[in-house]
Amino acid sequence: MIEPLPAILVEPIVRAALTEDLGRAGDITTDAVIPATAAFDGVIAARQPGTIAGIEAARLAFFLLDPTISLGIEKPDGTAVAAGDVVARVKGPARAILSAERTALNFLCRLSGTATATARLVEAAKPHRARIVCTRKTTPGLRPLEKHAVRAGGGVNHRFGLDDAVLIKDNHVAVAGGIRAAVERARAAIGHLVKIEVEVDTLQQLEEVLTLPVDVVLLDNMAPEMLACAVTMVAGRLLTEASGRVNENTVREIAATGVDYISSGWITHSAPILDLGLDV
Amino acid sequence: MIEPLPAILVEPIVRAALTEDLGRAGDITTDAVIPATAAFDGVIAARQPGTIAGIEAARLAFFLLDPTISLGIEKPDGTAVAAGDVVARVKGPARAILSAERTALNFLCRLSGTATATARLVEAAKPHRARIVCTRKTTPGLRPLEKHAVRAGGGVNHRFGLDDAVLIKDNHVAVAGGIRAAVERARAAIGHLVKIEVEVDTLQQLEEVLTLPVDVVLLDNMAPEMLACAVTMVAGRLLTEASGRVNENTVREIAATGVDYISSGWITHSAPILDLGLDV
Amino acid sequence: MIEPLPAILVEPIVRAALTEDLGRAGDITTDAVIPATAAFDGVIAARQPGTIAGIEAARLAFFLLDPTISLGIEKPDGTAVAAGDVVARVKGPARAILSAERTALNFLCRLSGTATATARLVEAAKPHRARIVCTRKTTPGLRPLEKHAVRAGGGVNHRFGLDDAVLIKDNHVAVAGGIRAAVERARAAIGHLVKIEVEVDTLQQLEEVLTLPVDVVLLDNMAPEMLACAVTMVAGRLLTEASGRVNENTVREIAATGVDYISSGWITHSAPILDLGLDV
Amino acid sequence: MIEPLPAILVEPIVRAALTEDLGRAGDITTDAVIPATAAFDGVIAARQPGTIAGIEAARLAFFLLDPTISLGIEKPDGTAVAAGDVVARVKGPARAILSAERTALNFLCRLSGTATATARLVEAAKPHRARIVCTRKTTPGLRPLEKHAVRAGGGVNHRFGLDDAVLIKDNHVAVAGGIRAAVERARAAIGHLVKIEVEVDTLQQLEEVLTLPVDVVLLDNMAPEMLACAVTMVAGRLLTEASGRVNENTVREIAATGVDYISSGWITHSAPILDLGLDV
Amino acid sequence: MIEPLPAILVEPIVRAALTEDLGRAGDITTDAVIPATAAFDGVIAARQPGTIAGIEAARLAFFLLDPTISLGIEKPDGTAVAAGDVVARVKGPARAILSAERTALNFLCRLSGTATATARLVEAAKPHRARIVCTRKTTPGLRPLEKHAVRAGGGVNHRFGLDDAVLIKDNHVAVAGGIRAAVERARAAIGHLVKIEVEVDTLQQLEEVLTLPVDVVLLDNMAPEMLACAVTMVAGRLLTEASGRVNENTVREIAATGVDYISSGWITHSAPILDLGLDV
Amino acid sequence: MIEPLPAILVEPIVRAALTEDLGRAGDITTDAVIPATAAFDGVIAARQPGTIAGIEAARLAFFLLDPTISLGIEKPDGTAVAAGDVVARVKGPARAILSAERTALNFLCRLSGTATATARLVEAAKPHRARIVCTRKTTPGLRPLEKHAVRAGGGVNHRFGLDDAVLIKDNHVAVAGGIRAAVERARAAIGHLVKIEVEVDTLQQLEEVLTLPVDVVLLDNMAPEMLACAVTMVAGRLLTEASGRVNENTVREIAATGVDYISSGWITHSAPILDLGLDV
Repeated sequence: MIEPLPAILVEPIVRAALTEDLGRAGDITTDAVIPATAAFDGVIAARQPGTIAGIEAARLAFFLLDPTISLGIEKPDGTAVAAGDVVARVKGPARAILSAERTALNFLCRLSGTATATARLVEAAKPHRARIVCTRKTTPGLRPLEKHAVRAGGGVNHRFGLDDAVLIKDNHVAVAGGIRAAVERARAAIGHLVKIEVEVDTLQQLEEVLTLPVDVVLLDNMAPEMLACAVTMVAGRLLTEASGRVNENTVREIAATGVDYISSGWITHSAPILDLGLDV
Repeated sequence: MIEPLPAILVEPIVRAALTEDLGRAGDITTDAVIPATAAFDGVIAARQPGTIAGIEAARLAFFLLDPTISLGIEKPDGTAVAAGDVVARVKGPARAILSAERTALNFLCRLSGTATATARLVEAAKPHRARIVCTRKTTPGLRPLEKHAVRAGGGVNHRFGLDDAVLIKDNHVAVAGGIRAAVERARAAIGHLVKIEVEVDTLQQLEEVLTLPVDVVLLDNMAPEMLACAVTMVAGRLLTEASGRVNENTVREIAATGVDYISSGWITHSAPILDLGLDV
Repeated sequence: MIEPLPAILVEPIVRAALTEDLGRAGDITTDAVIPATAAFDGVIAARQPGTIAGIEAARLAFFLLDPTISLGIEKPDGTAVAAGDVVARVKGPARAILSAERTALNFLCRLSGTATATARLVEAAKPHRARIVCTRKTTPGLRPLEKHAVRAGGGVNHRFGLDDAVLIKDNHVAVAGGIRAAVERARAAIGHLVKIEVEVDTLQQLEEVLTLPVDVVLLDNMAPEMLACAVTMVAGRLLTEASGRVNENTVREIAATGVDYISSGWITHSAPILDLGLDV
Repeated sequence: MIEPLPAILVEPIVRAALTEDLGRAGDITTDAVIPATAAFDGVIAARQPGTIAGIEAARLAFFLLDPTISLGIEKPDGTAVAAGDVVARVKGPARAILSAERTALNFLCRLSGTATATARLVEAAKPHRARIVCTRKTTPGLRPLEKHAVRAGGGVNHRFGLDDAVLIKDNHVAVAGGIRAAVERARAAIGHLVKIEVEVDTLQQLEEVLTLPVDVVLLDNMAPEMLACAVTMVAGRLLTEASGRVNENTVREIAATGVDYISSGWITHSAPILDLGLDV
Repeated sequence: MIEPLPAILVEPIVRAALTEDLGRAGDITTDAVIPATAAFDGVIAARQPGTIAGIEAARLAFFLLDPTISLGIEKPDGTAVAAGDVVARVKGPARAILSAERTALNFLCRLSGTATATARLVEAAKPHRARIVCTRKTTPGLRPLEKHAVRAGGGVNHRFGLDDAVLIKDNHVAVAGGIRAAVERARAAIGHLVKIEVEVDTLQQLEEVLTLPVDVVLLDNMAPEMLACAVTMVAGRLLTEASGRVNENTVREIAATGVDYISSGWITHSAPILDLGLDV
Repeated sequence: MIEPLPAILVEPIVRAALTEDLGRAGDITTDAVIPATAAFDGVIAARQPGTIAGIEAARLAFFLLDPTISLGIEKPDGTAVAAGDVVARVKGPARAILSAERTALNFLCRLSGTATATARLVEAAKPHRARIVCTRKTTPGLRPLEKHAVRAGGGVNHRFGLDDAVLIKDNHVAVAGGIRAAVERARAAIGHLVKIEVEVDTLQQLEEVLTLPVDVVLLDNMAPEMLACAVTMVAGRLLTEASGRVNENTVREIAATGVDYISSGWITHSAPILDLGLDV
């Protein structure tokens, strides 16, 4: 159900990771120890329950090292797995498979970690309308993949970068001399397909935002009661997003306030990996 | 005390991260909202206690966007910080600082997260001789930086890639037809500056390893009692490394077995970030 | 008044252009003919009236070849010039200046051509509210610079790529099985900071769009009377954009229909250069 | 009849253009709206008469996004087309075709624009011996493709860069202290496979050139009568090239003077695109 | 018998070499002279006796230009050839084969030159235990290929770079303040899979090294008698490597001293090519 | 007297060489052993007589690692040196100097080797008019630098690649069906600034070439008497170039035949390095 990223975007990242690992001499262990003709027939299996993301990156890691390796995907991105589930079947020359193994798993475990963390927040927020969104607190160099992993976990993507939407934060307001000045300058500068979001910390700021041509308001670090109050004040006139202290324990309470979106940096910057391994 | 990586190795990684965030149009919020002449004078501060790593990457993120930004480093890599500590002072054009902020923090928070996790394991293992080492379970594209962060946390680096040491694992042994065959082939193929490590799961395997020209034995997933027994069997004839289920709770017990090294994938693949922020 | 692009985005493009021109041996004419110590003191002057864009790219072309060349900018991006006006003063080693001259001018003339074409449309549309916007019909590899040139000419940017807004075109509608289906699928998939624009060719299609959660409607290839009718139907409920057969002769009439935006591919794909030259 | 460029030279340019358009998230419209299984069967058709160039770049744009897309070329580079002619048939997965469409057309329309402009000059000059040549006034990053488009239009290529022939221009002469000095220095420095061309503005300069070991003389900005006089003076002793104010209206008169070559910057820097579109 | 390098490491080097040769216009001779349909069926043959290395790079040179070219390898890397021997059969489109010929041969001749030189030293040292090793005196950009060529010639690889082993040289000792200080600092800093080698010029220095935790001693520029004495002193406690003035004339005498390794810069920095050519 | 290459062409090559040597962890020896504050003040000295080339590449190797290193050049490219001569003075941080040393010397020694070999041929040919030229038998990736080194040695450059001149060789003639056909096709296809050279093995072929519009004839593998005969036949109507079996012993005799140019592959593909070292 999750649309894959175009391979042309993923391939350079996987290629760089492979060459980072191969260094200048390649896999000296495998080249010395494994006969060139040895075949490998194994599986990538989950060692704990979670949600899969990054299977295409894993496939490319094997493919770029040797295009004759076949990867039979059993659990595509966005699928929930139980401990022990086979995620993919790997078949081909033993040398290339063993040499690419770590790179493939590094992508798959990490991205599945983000998908799993996202899915947990999504699950916790489910009784309510709030959707889980990510932030720009991603791993340098892996943003397209991590944004994809968030989608695989059932989340929604926030900005992909500094250039695809306006997000006016506290530091901007401070230097610009107020919310109104900041919004007006932004509105004058941007194109008609760009949205404006403004971060507020207080209900007073929110009141000002409600008088301005703003699309989304970011309610930062507000307690649930205050959030609920903010949602009431907004009354559907613009979209609301809550951020700050979002985790598995707090997300349900935040969702219950009626906000439209809840953003979490944790799902990309601190989620533990999902443990997966390659078994014969 | 921690030697910095050569900038020539770090710069391309930071440059790629910056352009990933800037996209095709740059920081449209800041360009619209902040006057070109506005100055910024602030600090990067720790929001929780931990160990710093990645300050050079953060410095480069600012520098590459605008070389007139000055970053006064107060807590260099390897330094322990308390919540509230100023890590660096940032001064220069407000626009460039706000545009580079997230990229700089993404490096600094993530690498400090690894350094902090490492430092915790190091601390826990301290009464014993065991040193904490990392693995190849690193973030694709960031290996040199994460290996550096491990050093900043007081750890020691394992292999940097597939090409700088031999590590014969269970899959190698299975395909090669035994430990002896694998070690002999490796010994014949490699140069005189390359070491050989062999992974064993049982004391029987360890016995075989002790008869072979091996430099290090990796004792994988052994219970503490079995580890202690293995260390006794080895009796200093080669270096011992324990792996598997290493975390803050278990590391002291593992260290107490007398192993020389304890390797942890967690410090690079699942350590949460250290929370740091940019404040005016 | 036009915010410059970050140099980190422009530099690789200029560097590639310089090395494309220098080839494998550099400027064999200048190296042979011009003494290494010769100095050059000249100006870049306009040979016809227009609007300047690309001065930073020109500056980088000189700077990357020799950082001791100084470029004194007299007419920054977005400035109107008359024939004969001095745009910048160039001073430094004659060799490097002559070697970089063509690359610098290739950027400056081409981007000023786009800015000039945009400014003409903007001027023609002026009595009305309509703003001029660009398209994705840009020169491969130069999109960030051409989008910037459009801003320099007083225009507004449309999408920077396929990933920063939804634009549902006739081919999408055809394959998706109708406008409603297409819009609903898009709305379900995208984040809360992404806008949706739909292209329509008929007023009947427009009527359907007006019942859907759409932000902008693209009125494609409609005659002025039909456009005016469409604007009346929309009645400000969403933004209107006209496209098709937009040129200096037609733009005023199109603007007079009351549309919010008029998009032109011509300003990026077919605008002639603005003639500028380097004189001693 | 026109030899294609090696794909190894074209591919990186097309790849860069594709990723420029796909950004960090790919084609969010198509991914959301078009089912993954939908097929597309359409044609690239000419909307106006002209000469085709760039079909290989267009083919690569589709191929790089999805190698299963087939492009059946009906009008290879160098072919004249009428409005309505089918240039190529495109068949394959609808998603990938729609995502690559704009990039493919951006190359094809632009390069065909240059081929068409060239062909018009070639046609106008036809009764005479003069051949049409391009300049270094090309689009940064696209020089190999634009030089190829000139050949597709029946033109001949001038220098590919600063390193493959000597062209001594007015600025060189001014700094070098005269034409003779400049030519002698060049002759002493260059290899035996490099030709020397000298730009002259007056017949007096031409007289000096005729006494020097020069291969080609560039007669810049001379009126037709003066050009004819120059051709007579040269009397076939070296090749003659006319430049300046070359366009469809003037080229026949210039050709009639008997010059060997007529160079035009317009065909690469200001030719409008040839309008082509993708139709179901 | 020699394991090939992963193509992912070799391909970028070959690609860069091909584009270096093709420049901006490709092979203008072949494109003009050879019909597009012409086929070529020929062989790469040795013109002098030697040892082959680099056949994969040669294969990639042809493959990258045209994947339909077939290269039937008769003498894989590491094979000895006589003058006249066919190394590989090349079959496919004449144009692509002639265009790639020089690049393919440049790799093959150069790398076979290194393999041949290595094989000669290996042969000369044969009666003794000493193995031939290379240095870091390699061609910039070709280190992985040249290290591979050394293996093809029967040699063993020394360090691949500055990061995979410690080699303490005279300059290090001078600045560090003595061998003991240097070794101790190194031992404290490095991981457990890194070896330490120390260069000594005198037997006195050797004596000091024998008291330190060092893996290999580099006996630099010692006369054979002194070398023999050093070997006796070491008595197998660590590995010995001789360097300095190693060539075909001296290597046997050096080997006879009983050293374990003899390192030669000559095999990578000054070995003449092995003459090979492409014949119809 | 030798014009330096633009740094923009040399820098990427040196940067790649440095990172090839630094790997993923940098210079672990120097970082561990040398204090960060240690300074180095030394010289690069010649250990044997020769001609210098590549000093700019060496300078960049130091500069790219640490811009505070100063390199005082005493013997610029093209200068003859005696054994013991100081080529440059190096001063700055000891760590960076020791880390960059090998990369700097790898460039300098290799390129000076080519310059020295060229200078020897030039010297041997001196009584005669013949000039020494290089070929395309260069090191993959280093062609611009090696062509420069040939100039530093007093030689002249042949083609830089397949695209800047036509060279019709025996294989071309064979497939094209004769010299005349080949030359005519080439003449029709190429621009007016491109020269044509034809390779001949016999005087009969030479006779045919003399009837065709050819600029240079390559007299391949002819004995001196035959060469002299060919020169007489040509009688200055076109340039003559001799190739085949050119070395220090044969070059004088070849030059005495009166040919204009003598081309040597040996100076780039098999010249030994010039031995230079870094001394405190």
